Amino acid sequence: MNRREALKLSGAAMYSLSQSLLSNASSLKPAAMAQTPIEQWGIFEVSVKGPESGNPFLDVSFRATFRRHNRTVNVPGFYDGNGIFRVRFMPEDIGEWTFETASNIPELNGQTGRFDVVVASKSNHGPVSVTGGRHFCYADGTPYSPFGTTCYAWVHQGDELENQTLRTLSTTRFNKIRMCIFPKSFPYNHNEPVYYPFPRDASGKNDTQVFNVQFFQHLERRIQDLCNLGIEADVILFHPYDRWGYSSLPKEVDDRYLRYVIARLASYRNVWWSLANEYDSVKTKSMADWDRFARIVEEEDSFHHLRSIHYNKQVYDYSKQWATHAGVQSYDFICEFPKTRQWFLDWRKPIIFDEFQYEGNISDRWGNLSPEEMTRRCWLCIISGCFASHGETYKDPSDIIWWSKGGSLHGSSPDRIGFLRKIVEECGPVGLRAVDDSYYLSAAAGQDTILYYFDYHRPEEYEFRLPAGFTYRAELIDPWNMTIAPVDGAFTGNAKLKLSGSPFHAVRFRKTI
Amino acid sequence: MNRREALKLSGAAMYSLSQSLLSNASSLKPAAMAQTPIEQWGIFEVSVKGPESGNPFLDVSFRATFRRHNRTVNVPGFYDGNGIFRVRFMPEDIGEWTFETASNIPELNGQTGRFDVVVASKSNHGPVSVTGGRHFCYADGTPYSPFGTTCYAWVHQGDELENQTLRTLSTTRFNKIRMCIFPKSFPYNHNEPVYYPFPRDASGKNDTQVFNVQFFQHLERRIQDLCNLGIEADVILFHPYDRWGYSSLPKEVDDRYLRYVIARLASYRNVWWSLANEYDSVKTKSMADWDRFARIVEEEDSFHHLRSIHYNKQVYDYSKQWATHAGVQSYDFICEFPKTRQWFLDWRKPIIFDEFQYEGNISDRWGNLSPEEMTRRCWLCIISGCFASHGETYKDPSDIIWWSKGGSLHGSSPDRIGFLRKIVEECGPVGLRAVDDSYYLSAAAGQDTILYYFDYHRPEEYEFRLPAGFTYRAELIDPWNMTIAPVDGAFTGNAKLKLSGSPFHAVRFRKTI
Repeated sequence: MNRREALKLSGAAMYSLSQSLLSNASSLKPAAMAQTPIEQWGIFEVSVKGPESGNPFLDVSFRATFRRHNRTVNVPGFYDGNGIFRVRFMPEDIGEWTFETASNIPELNGQTGRFDVVVASKSNHGPVSVTGGRHFCYADGTPYSPFGTTCYAWVHQGDELENQTLRTLSTTRFNKIRMCIFPKSFPYNHNEPVYYPFPRDASGKNDTQVFNVQFFQHLERRIQDLCNLGIEADVILFHPYDRWGYSSLPKEVDDRYLRYVIARLASYRNVWWSLANEYDSVKTKSMADWDRFARIVEEEDSFHHLRSIHYNKQVYDYSKQWATHAGVQSYDFICEFPKTRQWFLDWRKPIIFDEFQYEGNISDRWGNLSPEEMTRRCWLCIISGCFASHGETYKDPSDIIWWSKGGSLHGSSPDRIGFLRKIVEECGPVGLRAVDDSYYLSAAAGQDTILYYFDYHRPEEYEFRLPAGFTYRAELIDPWNMTIAPVDGAFTGNAKLKLSGSPFHAVRFRKTI
Repeated sequence: MNRREALKLSGAAMYSLSQSLLSNASSLKPAAMAQTPIEQWGIFEVSVKGPESGNPFLDVSFRATFRRHNRTVNVPGFYDGNGIFRVRFMPEDIGEWTFETASNIPELNGQTGRFDVVVASKSNHGPVSVTGGRHFCYADGTPYSPFGTTCYAWVHQGDELENQTLRTLSTTRFNKIRMCIFPKSFPYNHNEPVYYPFPRDASGKNDTQVFNVQFFQHLERRIQDLCNLGIEADVILFHPYDRWGYSSLPKEVDDRYLRYVIARLASYRNVWWSLANEYDSVKTKSMADWDRFARIVEEEDSFHHLRSIHYNKQVYDYSKQWATHAGVQSYDFICEFPKTRQWFLDWRKPIIFDEFQYEGNISDRWGNLSPEEMTRRCWLCIISGCFASHGETYKDPSDIIWWSKGGSLHGSSPDRIGFLRKIVEECGPVGLRAVDDSYYLSAAAGQDTILYYFDYHRPEEYEFRLPAGFTYRAELIDPWNMTIAPVDGAFTGNAKLKLSGSPFHAVRFRKTI
């Protein structure tokens, strides 16, 4: 089954699970067993009919406590319009769970129930978290190496383009996407969004006392669509590129928005939180604001999804405890990536280069890399023990540019990035770390795999120093033509190999059994 | 007449001028007019027979004072073996000069004479010096932009290979060469030199009380050969790559060697002095030694040739007064060249990147650039307002590698560097300076020419901001395919151009008359 088929099947199946619970919800009986078993890291949703009068967003509190044996998880709920209050739970353990709701409204308070959680389906590995200090894995232990792309405002483009984006994603090997909640106002981004997060009157005034549930329902659907494709949704909570007022909301609205988003989305196992795109370009917010947002995300997300923040020029201090990983930007990437050695020492966290310019041909300096240079940068990230994010900015007569709106990909780097993903995944469960004392750039996954990337160098031959006591097979890798050519023989110790003579090639040594 | 023909003709002619004076020298009559007129910036040599007994190198002082009107130039002489003492003069002014020798030996003292200096021949523009703070020109005002190459030990390879090197040079557009006086001991450099600078006994002991005049005569011949090809000889006085003891001579021998070299070579108009290759790798010498050498070169060179020094890792302080220009090395060139903005402010001198790795395919990190990357680096130098040096290190079964021994060139960058030289020379008499506020890399020669280099960027089109009040014609330049494609129309102010779509291309704007 390819990814496009997976989108059709599993997307429908998983979403309807949540829907079916929703439709039963108003008749949910206290302490009754839910009919459909929930899979581990799936979504169990309690929905209860409550008051529609007044402003339920502000006036009503609603949460639930989920219990299994000695494990208790408190989960905030949210108002979804039409008198429906929901609380969503992502169970981490198999077996029987119970829940009990709490509210300042009697009819929403003290509702209880039980449900069974069964083993996850094959494609469900759970949420991603940090492992080994510099790497990621799914909750079931499957290694996860982010090979992400960027479609900032794709959920604001309407179903036709959004479905095209999903179809495009299904044909790639990208397993993460950077995406904003708020719409984007920027060059090439002049269209109005289909949905606004707050109701908006004819004069353009936001009613920030309530939320536009249609927008958030739509957003959730897109996150589920991504989940069905096996793609992590790196959800960007704030950004500066705004003409609607979303980057300059009052503090209490910012905080309420954050809590609402978290209550709605945190049960989706593929969600990551990025506090901001270019936090230092959001001139209305101070570091104290970002610190507060970080605390809110930490406290409100009962499922402890990955958390980071992205900067423009002012490198964020990712040693701050709340951040699970670094999401750096680098205009001057070729000169900055060697800094990662120090960054790893300072931050002790995985490093993702969220942005190091895009493949494309627009005039802006950040948007006209050749596919060869994009491929090279991805390799340099990997060989530094970091991860890379793709983005694409080819001119389009309708300004439908992948980096922001999604649609179709036009570049040649995605295939090469997919090839690199294959190379990295073949390195085994131990992630790659830069080898500091190598003459050329290299990274090793324990003793199992040693990967050399020669960047612009092209020695005719080279004597590699392999770890003592092991025997390796060698492969010559052409990252652009996506070929892996085994070299005859077995290699130990100081091993001289004749190379391709071309720049931007790689060599992989894999330990023989 | 191409450069190979020039080598044959002018080489013979100019060298025989010096030779003919030499053959007459022992019978030179006091106050007699020399027969052959000397051209401006040519060499007038006085040679007198003196004592052969004792050690004339140490025991005999010999110098001469040259006068024309109120101009007096004191020039040190040297002992050339077989009882012959010489003093060489490079006249800067046309007309009649007189001279008078001075010595502690009566027969060498008080010799006088007159000679006429006539206007320089067409290919003789005089020595190169600094102009406009960041650029170079010949003494006759002709702009000179160094496009040099590197053949460190070429004068130690024997006539056959040396003549091949000269033939190769005659087919290129290189107009400078970095070359060592001492032979080189280094990987790929295991052969013994043909001549040693000091006599050497069977056990390998140097007799540093005398010089091997055959070596220095040979060196002079090679410098004259380069002069005949229009190539500046960037003469490197010390270097660390040594197995003969030349990098660890006693201080008094170092100083005597320097004075001897200067006395012999300073009259060659194409000589530049480089105190060292990688001064900071010469572990036997301190900064005080280098300072002393600088003073000796300044004081002893009556003709004030260009002076610099080259480093390995410790950037030299080129603001020191003695240095006429910077001769930097950069392993990490792509990240270092932006430092040139600060360097220009700190040093206020021309900057030549003497070494930023070489085109080739050897294993060493510094020796396996592709020709594309070498070409790119040369463009980046030029667009930064600096100058670049070529070098080539292709593996050879006999270790005859251009970078050290000369011979033949095998790479593809020299033609592209020649093309770049043409581009730069067409920019007119005012040299290029980096434009600091441009979105992409650019340099301007006054208002006349603006040169953009897009490096890895490849916007489909770009709106250039041309200096107000002028009209320009535009050309699209492909540095690799060496094409210049004029763009239709004239451009003023903000001018949008459709570009090639390929990276590493350039655009030139030239003011219309």
